[in-house]
Amino acid sequence: MSKNNILTEILGKIKPTLDEQQKMQKVADHIISLVDQVAAGSGLTDVSGTLVGSAARGTWISGEHDLDIFITFPEVTSNEELKNLGLKIARQVSASADRFEERYAEHPYIHALFNDFEVDLVPCFRVESAAQIKSSVDRTPFHNQFILEKINGLEDEVLLLKQFMKGAGVYGSDLRTGGFSGYLAELLIIHYGSFIAVLEAADGWKPAITIDIIEHGNKQHNDPLVMVDPTDPGRNVAAALTLDRFAGFIDRARQYLDSPGLEQFFPSLAAPLSDAEFESIMTERGTFLIAVVFDKPDVVEDVLYPQLFMLHSSIKDLLSRHKFPLLNVDVWAGDNEAAILLEIEVLHLPPVKKHAGPPVWEKIHAGSFKKKYIENKGISGVYIENGRYMVDIQRKYTDAAELLRNDLHACRLGKHVGENIKSGFKVLYGRELLKVNFQSFREFLTGFFHQNINQ
Amino acid sequence: MSKNNILTEILGKIKPTLDEQQKMQKVADHIISLVDQVAAGSGLTDVSGTLVGSAARGTWISGEHDLDIFITFPEVTSNEELKNLGLKIARQVSASADRFEERYAEHPYIHALFNDFEVDLVPCFRVESAAQIKSSVDRTPFHNQFILEKINGLEDEVLLLKQFMKGAGVYGSDLRTGGFSGYLAELLIIHYGSFIAVLEAADGWKPAITIDIIEHGNKQHNDPLVMVDPTDPGRNVAAALTLDRFAGFIDRARQYLDSPGLEQFFPSLAAPLSDAEFESIMTERGTFLIAVVFDKPDVVEDVLYPQLFMLHSSIKDLLSRHKFPLLNVDVWAGDNEAAILLEIEVLHLPPVKKHAGPPVWEKIHAGSFKKKYIENKGISGVYIENGRYMVDIQRKYTDAAELLRNDLHACRLGKHVGENIKSGFKVLYGRELLKVNFQSFREFLTGFFHQNINQ
Repeated sequence: MSKNNILTEILGKIKPTLDEQQKMQKVADHIISLVDQVAAGSGLTDVSGTLVGSAARGTWISGEHDLDIFITFPEVTSNEELKNLGLKIARQVSASADRFEERYAEHPYIHALFNDFEVDLVPCFRVESAAQIKSSVDRTPFHNQFILEKINGLEDEVLLLKQFMKGAGVYGSDLRTGGFSGYLAELLIIHYGSFIAVLEAADGWKPAITIDIIEHGNKQHNDPLVMVDPTDPGRNVAAALTLDRFAGFIDRARQYLDSPGLEQFFPSLAAPLSDAEFESIMTERGTFLIAVVFDKPDVVEDVLYPQLFMLHSSIKDLLSRHKFPLLNVDVWAGDNEAAILLEIEVLHLPPVKKHAGPPVWEKIHAGSFKKKYIENKGISGVYIENGRYMVDIQRKYTDAAELLRNDLHACRLGKHVGENIKSGFKVLYGRELLKVNFQSFREFLTGFFHQNINQ
Repeated sequence: MSKNNILTEILGKIKPTLDEQQKMQKVADHIISLVDQVAAGSGLTDVSGTLVGSAARGTWISGEHDLDIFITFPEVTSNEELKNLGLKIARQVSASADRFEERYAEHPYIHALFNDFEVDLVPCFRVESAAQIKSSVDRTPFHNQFILEKINGLEDEVLLLKQFMKGAGVYGSDLRTGGFSGYLAELLIIHYGSFIAVLEAADGWKPAITIDIIEHGNKQHNDPLVMVDPTDPGRNVAAALTLDRFAGFIDRARQYLDSPGLEQFFPSLAAPLSDAEFESIMTERGTFLIAVVFDKPDVVEDVLYPQLFMLHSSIKDLLSRHKFPLLNVDVWAGDNEAAILLEIEVLHLPPVKKHAGPPVWEKIHAGSFKKKYIENKGISGVYIENGRYMVDIQRKYTDAAELLRNDLHACRLGKHVGENIKSGFKVLYGRELLKVNFQSFREFLTGFFHQNINQ
């Protein structure tokens, strides 16, 4: 299939039909008019609803039913008023929704379901410029305005890039993914001009590549990709992008330019491993799998994942301090439980370990070291190596699973994950992992062994 | 026992009796007169015998029957003449010995046995000063002269220091021991004034401590102890002293000053381990013992030991490159065989290992790495970690003993040890070590587990 035919076929799958677009517009118009009516009914003639995000810009992918409707207040509104009145209006609007709930970011907002559309009703301030925002969501209307001015005719290119990024596992600026946001994808298209031009550019990217569309950046950033926000000279739109997502995109871009295919937009998922496959992989690898499983804290993903990553890094440090060589590690969160999965090279270390003391000529320290190990005998006597006193002592943990069971609670842990770890956790080992009764955990195990495989 | 009583008792054991001294003097005088007669008989009136070394200085320990008799030639003698005439005289003198053999240092010399005395008959040049020596042995008469001038009345202190150093395992400047030479011990006594004063000084030594008795040193040395040779301003008498022998002496000096005892001069040797003791130690330690055993090259110790140490360091590097963690290592040489003994923490590693490629953004290298591992599949696909391509590949050696069996011959090895390793070696593991049928190897194993124990 030719390059153009591939893109045409992909667009056929991801571009909303006219019918779909009209339906979306109808729902959005209806909700916005509800916002305006409710505000007017409360005497707030200066408060109005506005559609922002990809739905407003014609850069949403067919089948996505997400609407971001902002309830905009004049800049003079106090924080307290915005919070109270904003929520009051959002609640009244949602009275006609199928269901709704309050959610919390910098300010509270309402998440509602209207006719199969997931709608966020978000109060914000209408400020003069993005440099004067009073809360982080106030920036969105400026993004909207900039994209609307520049994107005309490039919407399909944005759709292709977003779907390609999804296929590559690098789409989403949430803290779990650490990938490219929709706004970043739009800016890349505006800067380079087309989907293929972005891929060709990425082929030559190196860390610290900087793009400044309107050439107004005024701050240094230490990130793999710096996309200066056209609406705010001090902000890097790509701040959430991790080095591995950055590299992953470069890798996939090259691969597509070399041999383009539909499957790069819609990769097939590996079938979950069967028990037999799992055991045969473990035999082939000869390593040891350990999972630390605990109750998942009831917090949003952007709170949960940084804490899972911190747990991951604390466990890495703990194993390294005790000399257990770690090969791979990953985190998982299911509906009610969360886990860290560890693949280690050596499960058992000998009961003896060397303990190094001070150089013999450091009289005071050397004296107390020697005294200590004469009174409290090690496995060996005190001997000299490279000028230092040494003693062979009992290793505290000869088994990595036992180390985790006993010392994990004492590690540096995030608030919610820490509380749940302290109230209890399981350490599962090898075949025990197959007893974890969640399909999504099995899918995670499958992904763990296929991670980032590009062939 | 009081400090003085201990020293008196030790001197009683190590100081030659008058009878012993007279006997030694008689043998020395006899051989020297033989040298003079033989030289005169060949018309070499300017060649004469002279006694040097500890026997000449009254600093030899009772029971030692070593005589160094130098055959001194005028400075104008050519190298060739010295070699030929020197050997000729030494051979004629040795005609009346019980047995003798030629040995080789910088020049050949004769080692002979006269009435239970081990005698070295060494040709040398009589030069103006130690700075003008023509071969390294020419320095010895100058050492002799310096010590004889200064040692008067301090001979017993030298005896005590030498015996103490023997007890501490730090006596001998041969390349196996890397300890203190007799001349160095004498200079320490001359500098500090007494055995106890040397110990008190050592208590405060730090590496790079420099002693320059006649304050004429003219060269920087990078050694733990620098004793500027009073007969040669550019030479460090302590150049052969290793950091661990230096530290070992400091350690023993402190221990003696804290609680003096006879056993520090004459430590009791640990009884060789029985099979049962060996096995119980191995169980307690939980480590893995491997010995590489091969035919001992037929060379002197000062040639053999540096090559054994080089083998030791090559094996350390080999194991480290292949990620087998090494705990302890030592070398052994018996009558006909030699060995390296290794104690490792982990005998087996998993079949899989991570192989890191270039950063993804290094286009050319990244491309060829990825191509290579797509054609020649690893255990995993190519994935990305910290911005680099990675692939899990088959570990070449999962067993440390197998690694040694296959790759040892390719290591950097000394000439003689290398030849013997290439012609064959055994890798013994665990209980197999108990089958090595030499008492001295069992003693070595015993020492390995008691090495440097100070309690």
